[in-house]
Parts: sequence; structure tokens; C-alpha cells
Amino acid sequence: MRKKKKSLYVIIVGCGRMGSIVANYASADGHNVVIIDKDEKSFELLSPDFSGFTIHGDATEVENLKAAKAENADVLLALTNDDNTNFMVSMIAKYVFGVRKVVARVYDPDNYQLFNDFEIHSISPILLMAEALRGVLIPTED
Amino acid sequence: MRKKKKSLYVIIVGCGRMGSIVANYASADGHNVVIIDKDEKSFELLSPDFSGFTIHGDATEVENLKAAKAENADVLLALTNDDNTNFMVSMIAKYVFGVRKVVARVYDPDNYQLFNDFEIHSISPILLMAEALRGVLIPTED
Repeated sequence: MRKKKKSLYVIIVGCGRMGSIVANYASADGHNVVIIDKDEKSFELLSPDFSGFTIHGDATEVENLKAAKAENADVLLALTNDDNTNFMVSMIAKYVFGVRKVVARVYDPDNYQLFNDFEIHSISPILLMAEALRGVLIPTED
Repeated sequence: MRKKKKSLYVIIVGCGRMGSIVANYASADGHNVVIIDKDEKSFELLSPDFSGFTIHGDATEVENLKAAKAENADVLLALTNDDNTNFMVSMIAKYVFGVRKVVARVYDPDNYQLFNDFEIHSISPILLMAEALRGVLIPTED
């Protein structure tokens, strides 16, 4: 039985391995997805079932976020592999377009604080992995 | 009050951002850590309090794992940013040196299955992050 749920308007910036995985499942989950990347080839990572829109362009340029109708977005995910790009896109989304939920991927843990200072929710894959490895380093009795 | 615990002999391959973070906390947690990297400069990421050993060399070469006394290791973590290197190091550690717990970082989710086929426990930071983002894409009522 399917639960009835409200779908979200989600903008994803960066269609690399991570962005494309998230875009694919967000689309499959019934959300309205727009994904932006400056490399047109990256869209090949999207599933054939991906039902969202793609925008080929630099998301740090305001007109591209305007084309994505960022002012209507429920969530913007900045998932490129470049911290500076993610920071800039997040700032524009949050403070120019007023996107309520902005989440950025942060590569360098040293940048973590900067994102938090501007109230951008940031997630570091490296710190997630380092955390996951803590469980491996527990001595066992065998 | 400190809990009395057995310390582990841990070999970490790759002293980039991820390897150095794990090496620092593993050392701080009282484990015996050896970290191997072919780039000597990468050891600068280690904390001044890091009490383990560093080996400058290519961990895919058996003599370097021998120098690290891999046959005595409780755990080997292959954490370079290159899947091929991590796979090769893991295979040697597990099947030549008989290391019981071998865990590898996998960048490309498409390689995940290969590692699992050889019973190498693999963790993908990208999949961890994609999973973490699922929580962000739940519609709220506000």
C-alpha cells in the first residue's frame, strides 16, 4: 500500500555520482526534481526513468537558478565536488531566493564551520565515513 | 572513569583527509596505528599528538605491508581516494597476510559489488551521504 504524501520541489546542483544518485531516487520517490550541471555529459548518469528537468549551466549564475524557479523550491541540494561552488550556490539560494532548506556537501572538513556560520546545513561524506569506521575499531573478543 | 579496553593494531593506507582523521582518532583512542602513504607530505595532516608510525611508500607493494607488519594487524583500512589501489591493498592484506578485518573506501558505487564478492567490507562515502540526504527530502507540514 502506498502512503499518500506531498511531493517536494527539489533543485539539485551537480550531477556527478552523488547528485545523480540523489536525483534518481528523489524522482522515483515522486518529487519534482530539477538538476543543474555545467557539464552536459554528466546528465548521462541519470536513470532513464528520471522524470525531472535538467538545466545545463553554471548554478552560481543567478539566471540559471532563476530558470530553475529557485524561488519556488522547497529544498536545494548543492552537491558538486567543489566546496566553493557549493558555498556560493547555497548562499544565493538561501539569501537571494529564500529557499527554506539548503543543504550542501562539504569536502574539506575545515570548511564545515563556514557553512554553519551562514546557517547552511552541511554534510561531509568524509566525516560520515570516518564516523562509520569508528564501529570497525571496537576490539572484539574472538 | 576510563573503561579498560584492549587496543588494536591498525594499519591505515592513505593519509589524505579521511585517512588522517581516522588515524588521529584511532591513535587518540589508544590503538597502535601505522599509516602508509606514497606522498610524504600527506603526513602533515596528522595531529601533533599522533603517536603511531608512518611508512612512506606504495602499499600495493608487498614489502611495504611487510614493513608495516601486516601479518600482525587486527584491522587494515584502505582509505586512499583510488578504488583500484584500495582493492589491491585489501586483497593483499586479506589473502596474503591474512588480516582478519579489512575495510575499504569505495568511491564509485559500481565497484561496490566487486569488493563484496571478495568479502572485503566496503564503505562508500557517496552512498552514506545519499542516504543521509533521504532525511532531508521528507515533506514537513510547516
